[in-house]
This record gives sequence, structure tokens and C-alpha cells, in this order.
Amino acid sequence: MSICLTILGCHSATPRINAFPTAQYLEINNRHFLIDCGEGTQRQMRKYKVGFSKINHIFISHLHGDHFYGLVGLLSTFGILNREKELHIYGPKGIKKATLLQLKISQSHAKYPMVFHELISNESELIFEDDKVEIRTIPLDHRVYTNGYLFTEKEKPKKLNMLNISGYPEIGKADYLNIKAGKNITLSTGEVVSNSELTLPSSKPLSFAFCSDTSYKPDIIPTIKNVDLLYHEATFLDDRIDLAKKTKHSTTKQAARIAKEANVNQLVLGHYSGRYKDISIFKQEAQEVFKNTALAEPGKIFNI
Amino acid sequence: MSICLTILGCHSATPRINAFPTAQYLEINNRHFLIDCGEGTQRQMRKYKVGFSKINHIFISHLHGDHFYGLVGLLSTFGILNREKELHIYGPKGIKKATLLQLKISQSHAKYPMVFHELISNESELIFEDDKVEIRTIPLDHRVYTNGYLFTEKEKPKKLNMLNISGYPEIGKADYLNIKAGKNITLSTGEVVSNSELTLPSSKPLSFAFCSDTSYKPDIIPTIKNVDLLYHEATFLDDRIDLAKKTKHSTTKQAARIAKEANVNQLVLGHYSGRYKDISIFKQEAQEVFKNTALAEPGKIFNI
Repeated sequence: MSICLTILGCHSATPRINAFPTAQYLEINNRHFLIDCGEGTQRQMRKYKVGFSKINHIFISHLHGDHFYGLVGLLSTFGILNREKELHIYGPKGIKKATLLQLKISQSHAKYPMVFHELISNESELIFEDDKVEIRTIPLDHRVYTNGYLFTEKEKPKKLNMLNISGYPEIGKADYLNIKAGKNITLSTGEVVSNSELTLPSSKPLSFAFCSDTSYKPDIIPTIKNVDLLYHEATFLDDRIDLAKKTKHSTTKQAARIAKEANVNQLVLGHYSGRYKDISIFKQEAQEVFKNTALAEPGKIFNI
Repeated sequence: MSICLTILGCHSATPRINAFPTAQYLEINNRHFLIDCGEGTQRQMRKYKVGFSKINHIFISHLHGDHFYGLVGLLSTFGILNREKELHIYGPKGIKKATLLQLKISQSHAKYPMVFHELISNESELIFEDDKVEIRTIPLDHRVYTNGYLFTEKEKPKKLNMLNISGYPEIGKADYLNIKAGKNITLSTGEVVSNSELTLPSSKPLSFAFCSDTSYKPDIIPTIKNVDLLYHEATFLDDRIDLAKKTKHSTTKQAARIAKEANVNQLVLGHYSGRYKDISIFKQEAQEVFKNTALAEPGKIFNI
């Protein structure tokens, strides 16, 4: 069980020479997801060696250009690369019509099935689930309808502790499925052998929360409680808290406060405003509130 | 009078690490035009120091993604930069609806006036004219409706040759407007003084033709006859002439043949297929037909 997050872009507003709008590539429990897709994301994917064919699900937080103007180009490129596999796109209502119109007038002839999942709820909802991962929305507070996304590994079936099991001749293969499912076993004597004795300790399921863009919104804390990795936008330094409020963004310390109160393991900041030439101070400021803070940078990888 | 062409991108199909889709910045007779706008063009503009505020007219050849997927991001950025000046966008029918829908759902709030000039004619037509430049379409032959563009300087008003004029005391200030307009002057004796004697030789108006994408189409030759600079796509080397025909693109030698028969001064090739790692052979092949051939490369500038 593992998480590997690759930052493809982490700057706000407009693409610049060394500034790339939001996009992240998440590998979690052998599933591969693209999160947000600003202009130029497909080039960043090539630069950081993200396999195009691995992506089957794309999650768009909101429909500001710096989070989705690269989507149509990527979908078109999938077509040029002769993709046949179904692709699922999650994002706010409206994303389907605008994307399909662009693809239609450019006659991109993408032949693979595209399934759009348009989101409208203001409550956290389960939007994806398979045997390895589940994904929930994190409703955020921005100038337009916006969701963050919470990616959580599912617990694997428990592994048998054969050494301990061999101490109970009465326990046989017929019991293994129940043990793997977490059940205790009652012997013919009436003695109950606890499941923890019969199984090996399994690794803790990991989780990653992506929160961009949003004003300071403490009511997301229950949803992201105890995540291993939290990406939270910090568009401004803390002296511009008024501007953050006005534009519905967060400051360094606001992001750090969310991380602290949600008891996350590590915080990653990003979505820096173009006004800042040196972003190292973002880290310093946040660390005054939450020590284990890192900065998103293009190409940077976070491994858990 | 001068032409300065900056190549922003010159590769076909999809953006890659070192491949940028078609976009060119043309300065001609103190006018500034953007031609095509593939994904990532605004970043290339910053890289090669193209002033965003100088652009008042954008010309899109056709609606394949590698020629216009960067448009909506650029228009949005103009808005973020608080542009107020009118912007004119020329391109095939359909460009307005798809662009405005993307801008609308991303709530880009671009407050400057956008004027779309949607093209439908299959004949060359005058689409722009002011006191310095005129621009005509060059109907091309591609898989979708496509126009190249011909940019031509206008002749400046003639300058008076005061030395020669002073030899004719009868010619006074009242005649100057007629002389500048190219007229001969008839003296009271009936003698006609030719305009060429009364004016200084003026520099020849320059012209640039942009032709991408197109199959080999010799009937464009009369339209682009004698241009100083011709950009003509050459997607393939000449051994893939069948593929060029099938995809309605041109080969090196086909582009060179157009240049030769149109008697242009210099040919610039571009729109190279991604299959070619080394493009130097494009130049060699074309030069077998037309000597003064150069290769488009990102950042390369052609000055006349």
C-alpha cells in the first residue's frame, strides 16, 4: 500500500515561463489518477514521465481556466494516441458540454468512450469505489462551485498468521475465509480465538486529500481528519489575509491551521500567486503553525 | 518598412517536451499579429518576450487542436491582465461559439470587447485593411476548412524630391499632395513632369504568406506570387508523399515547389510530424528544389 504524488503544476492564474497551472498525478494502491488539468498539463506529463495510458480517471476541482484549460488538449491527444479504453472525467456541471463542443469543432475523432460525472452536491459524496481505493468529494468554498477530492486506500483482506493458526489443530482451511474477513473463531470447547491472534498486522490504509481552491473552511476538517498527505492551496502569504478572503483563497497559515486541526501527517502547499518571486517564505510561515509542511514544485514527488 | 516573424511553435499534432504546436508572431510595418495559437502559446509568448498588449488581431488557420487549443487560455489571460482594448479574432465558423462557451463556464470575466470574424469563403478575400497593412485569406486544402493568410505592407505616400522640384519654380506647395499621391504635373508650357522625377524612390512593400495546413495546392501560387517570405507546412519528408496526400498535408519538396513556382524570396518550413527526431533533412530535401529554404524552430526570428 503506497501513495506517490507527482506535482505537474502548482501555480495560480496563468501559465508563465516557470509557472505551471494546477495538475497532479496520484498513484495510490496501484490506481492512477490525474487531478486538475491546467493548460500545458500534457506537456508536463511527458516531462515527468507520466504514462498517458495509465490514466483512466480525471478529477477537475472547478472550472477556472488554470484548473481545466488543458483538459480538451489531453483528451484530443488520447484520441491521437489511439486510446480505446473508457475514460472517466469528474467535475462541476458544465464541463461536459464545453469539452465536447471543443472536441467536436476540432474534429478530434476521439474514438474511446468518455464518461462525464458532473457534480452538483454541496455535501461530501462517494464518487468512486473499487476494490483498492475509494474517492470522496470535499466541498470547498471558492468563487465558483469547487470540490476537493479525498483518496483513501481500502483495507486489504487480512493475511493469515500460519504460525499461530498451527497451534489450533481444530482450525482448518474452511475457516480461512472468515479469518481473512476479520472474524473471531469459536473452538468446540467454546473458547474464542481472537482474529488478531490468527492474522498478521496489516499496513494502515493511506489517504490523500486535495484541496484547491478554497477560502479558509474549517468545516472540511472532519472529512480530511488524519489523512497522511494533505495538499492545501496557499495562494497568499498571511499578510494578505484580506485579499485571500476577498478572492476566496487561503493564506499559508490558514492552510497550516487546517492541517494542524485535521491532524494530518504532512501538508503540501501550492497555488502560489504570481506576485511572489521567492516561495520559500510560504514554507516558513506555514511551519510556524504546522511543522511538517512542504512546498509543491513542478516535478516534485511525495512518496508514502 | 519591415517584417519580423517570430516562431513560437512549429510542430504538429500534440505538444511534447521540445515540441510546440503552431503559433507565430508577426510584426509587419509596425502592426503586430498572432497567427495560430496551439496549447501553450501564451507561455511561448512570454518566453520569447512577445508583448501581450501589442496583439489586437489573432488569425486562426483552422480548428484542429494544435492550431487553436491555446486561444481560450490566452483570451482569459488578457482578461486577468485587465485588457480593455478591442481584440479581433479571425477564424473558421464555429470558433466564436466554442471559445465563448469555454470562457463563460470558466467565468473568466474578460471585460474587453472581442470581435469574432468567422470565415466561410473558399475564395481569397480581403479581411483586414488599414493605412499600413492589408491581409487576405489564402484558401487551403486540408481535412477541415482552412485558410492561410497573406500579409502585405501598403505603399507609403511618396516622399518629395525637393532638389528636383526646386528646378521647376512653377511647382508649388499646392501640388505636393498630388505629387505624393503619384501624379505627374503638367506645366503651363504643356510640358509634363513625370512623378518619378519629383519623388524619391520608395522602399518596396514587403509581404509574408502563412500556409498551414494544406495538401499540395498549386492554385495558391497566383495569390502568393513574389512574396518576400513564405511559411509553408511540410509535415512529412518526400518519401511519405502518400501519407501526405491521405492526411492532406505537404512534403518538403511539395512546399519547395510551391515556393519556386511562386517565385518567393525565402521559404520557411514547419509543422513537422512527431515521427522525425532530426529535422535537418527537411531543409536538405527542400533545397534540392528551392535553395533559399530555412527551418522554423521555436524562438527563431526571420527579419526582412
